[in-house]
Amino acid sequence: MKPYAEMSKEELNTELQKLEKTYKKFQSEGMHLNMSRGKPCQEQLDLSMAMMDVLDSDSDLTCDDGTDCRNYGSLTGIEEARELLGDMMENNPKDIIIYGNSSLNVMFDTVSRAWTHGIMGNTPWCKLPEVKFLCPVPGYDRHFSITEYFGIKMIPVPMTQTGPDMDIVEKAVAEDESIKGIWCVPKYSNPQGISYSDETVRRFARLKPKAKDFRIFWDNAYGMHHLYDHQQDHIIEILAECKRAGNPDLVYKFASTSKITFPGSGIASLATSPNNMVDFTTSLRIQTLGHDKVNQLRHTRFFRNIHGMVEHMRKHADIIRPKFEMVEDTLEKDLGDLGVGTWTKPLGGYFIMFDSLPGCAKDIVARAKKAGVILTPAGSTWPYGNDINDSNIRIAPTFPSISELKKAMDVFTVCVRISSIHKLLDVQEG
Amino acid sequence: MKPYAEMSKEELNTELQKLEKTYKKFQSEGMHLNMSRGKPCQEQLDLSMAMMDVLDSDSDLTCDDGTDCRNYGSLTGIEEARELLGDMMENNPKDIIIYGNSSLNVMFDTVSRAWTHGIMGNTPWCKLPEVKFLCPVPGYDRHFSITEYFGIKMIPVPMTQTGPDMDIVEKAVAEDESIKGIWCVPKYSNPQGISYSDETVRRFARLKPKAKDFRIFWDNAYGMHHLYDHQQDHIIEILAECKRAGNPDLVYKFASTSKITFPGSGIASLATSPNNMVDFTTSLRIQTLGHDKVNQLRHTRFFRNIHGMVEHMRKHADIIRPKFEMVEDTLEKDLGDLGVGTWTKPLGGYFIMFDSLPGCAKDIVARAKKAGVILTPAGSTWPYGNDINDSNIRIAPTFPSISELKKAMDVFTVCVRISSIHKLLDVQEG
Repeated sequence: MKPYAEMSKEELNTELQKLEKTYKKFQSEGMHLNMSRGKPCQEQLDLSMAMMDVLDSDSDLTCDDGTDCRNYGSLTGIEEARELLGDMMENNPKDIIIYGNSSLNVMFDTVSRAWTHGIMGNTPWCKLPEVKFLCPVPGYDRHFSITEYFGIKMIPVPMTQTGPDMDIVEKAVAEDESIKGIWCVPKYSNPQGISYSDETVRRFARLKPKAKDFRIFWDNAYGMHHLYDHQQDHIIEILAECKRAGNPDLVYKFASTSKITFPGSGIASLATSPNNMVDFTTSLRIQTLGHDKVNQLRHTRFFRNIHGMVEHMRKHADIIRPKFEMVEDTLEKDLGDLGVGTWTKPLGGYFIMFDSLPGCAKDIVARAKKAGVILTPAGSTWPYGNDINDSNIRIAPTFPSISELKKAMDVFTVCVRISSIHKLLDVQEG
Repeated sequence: MKPYAEMSKEELNTELQKLEKTYKKFQSEGMHLNMSRGKPCQEQLDLSMAMMDVLDSDSDLTCDDGTDCRNYGSLTGIEEARELLGDMMENNPKDIIIYGNSSLNVMFDTVSRAWTHGIMGNTPWCKLPEVKFLCPVPGYDRHFSITEYFGIKMIPVPMTQTGPDMDIVEKAVAEDESIKGIWCVPKYSNPQGISYSDETVRRFARLKPKAKDFRIFWDNAYGMHHLYDHQQDHIIEILAECKRAGNPDLVYKFASTSKITFPGSGIASLATSPNNMVDFTTSLRIQTLGHDKVNQLRHTRFFRNIHGMVEHMRKHADIIRPKFEMVEDTLEKDLGDLGVGTWTKPLGGYFIMFDSLPGCAKDIVARAKKAGVILTPAGSTWPYGNDINDSNIRIAPTFPSISELKKAMDVFTVCVRISSIHKLLDVQEG
């Protein structure tokens, strides 16, 4: 089929009638399919059920250093967990804090602490007339929600194939002292699934921010989440690179096992410089007596070491790879030559990003919903939910079964085609 | 032996020489005993080891309502856990949020949220010229650390046998709009082990604070922690009483299973009014996707219901009751008629409070330390670590073995006697 943009009004109308018929058929099927969130599917969760057997009533719940995991203490986490997550994050265990069940919570607390107490002796953000964050777009809605909640002004920065547009980032942070942070998902980014190039990471490490309390919020949520065994993205380890660049305190690096074992019942972690570590632990020792060490022990005994975790992630990949490939195949088959959208083909992570014709995303998501297919709300990949192009849609292929996903994608591509034709007819008429 | 105050200088000096000899002998024994923190002992922790068997790889980790505990979701906790902790807190499950592993963390976050966003639409505390908290003294050091960390001015309020001096509390909150909260441990209080009388709770519920955003921080840490089966303190349920008094939003009530199952690996909870609940969940949904549901499920399946928890707490009591009684017996035997101190005889909780002659507490704790016995630092039961009488010492009998505890108490009472004699000799000379 030729591109829609080259079709006459009559051709488009004929195509539309055909598609509307298919759409009505879908509607009559009463589907309830959800592609909105990056959640593991049941088969993925089953992979970690053996973790429930690791500790039983006969287990010795003491660490190598004698710490009884059943009692208070170990503010920064047990050594075994710091070592395992150190290997996972490619950082020295001594630069790591093990937290509770949610890295998002760690990020929230980090912004909150900067708000109430400031960073490394600088003015608390609540005392400043304005605080801004750079937000690479499209990006992760829950990051944007945190900064929005604190009234931090969010400035969109375009993403390129190699990461955020670093010309813009460098200039903005060098000129504006009120810019205090940037949200990054450097590997298999949410929602694109792309990874920052070596040059991007190096330029991040060499930033010269005007604000002494500017920090990079480096959410390495998908560090281990490859889809393939050989074709894998690799990014330069940012803490080491910052240290080499003479900027050791520039970055807060977050990770968790949420999409490795059980989301909500995993362990989260932070890696940062010794100076930043003092900031974190000073508040942490007021906030809590320590995180869940039994769960830390459960995780370390389950994986044994980083090799165990890599093997485990290979099993995840085997389950979700066919889903990603099926989504990409369907997009290619149904939309490949129509010129109505582009999409990413990530090597890892949890998402595929789709970009429709400008002004179509909201309409596509609404249409899909009326046919029983829930997508992430259009706009949510932008600060304030405001996608200026109304084109970006995040596709989350992991949770549905492959047959449900196939059905949902059939609905999706039909919705894309219908919306695109409406848009093109509007343009022709307007 | 007659009271020290009635002894002559010569008699005191003779007594001192004898005690110094005993003290030196203790020192030569190279003891390392810790009575500083309210930690369960190993036998108590062993009581919950069966909880490690509750979930295994064959378990169905779905809730009654179909929620898969292994995946994201359930912001306010699984229904089973809200029901169990509702029974524990004597509150309706719908008024309860289940949190992570630390109620202290919930309290910290609550103050932090009031600081950054204000309470129920009122001005954020960070925007106010001054914020004050009432602090019943002696009280819990970690409460005071939270308010100190935020620069909140702490005003000591004397504790009586029936709770905080309510005349002072009522007057202060009615007159001073900058007073925004009060720290309470209403049952088996830390460090006294006393419980608020019915009148005290009723007067709390009927407070008429000038500040609309004044809240009672009701840390019911020891609600289930009785030492005896029949002789038990009972306090009026504060949320219901506030509702009856027409003050439904006046209180935040905190609890956890930290000293029921494993400290640091239990579950924490909050009970509050529907209006307050909106405040809590509005920020909570930005902060996290939910807490550890697998651990919630583990706890509910372990206890089955509130009766299971009561039976479990009876076993705790059997382990620690002899320790409390031994401490009380030793104090009575060694200090009973000397007039050098008073102490509480709680029916539950984790502490016994000792009050020395004024000006002796720091010296007693320092002496004990030099003989290898670590006590909670003198002064820590007061805001800013400043015990104006230098008399209050918190004794935590649970963690050491009974033989260690006996040894530690022998050292303690000798230290009390030596310090008291020095003080009395100083007074006679001065």
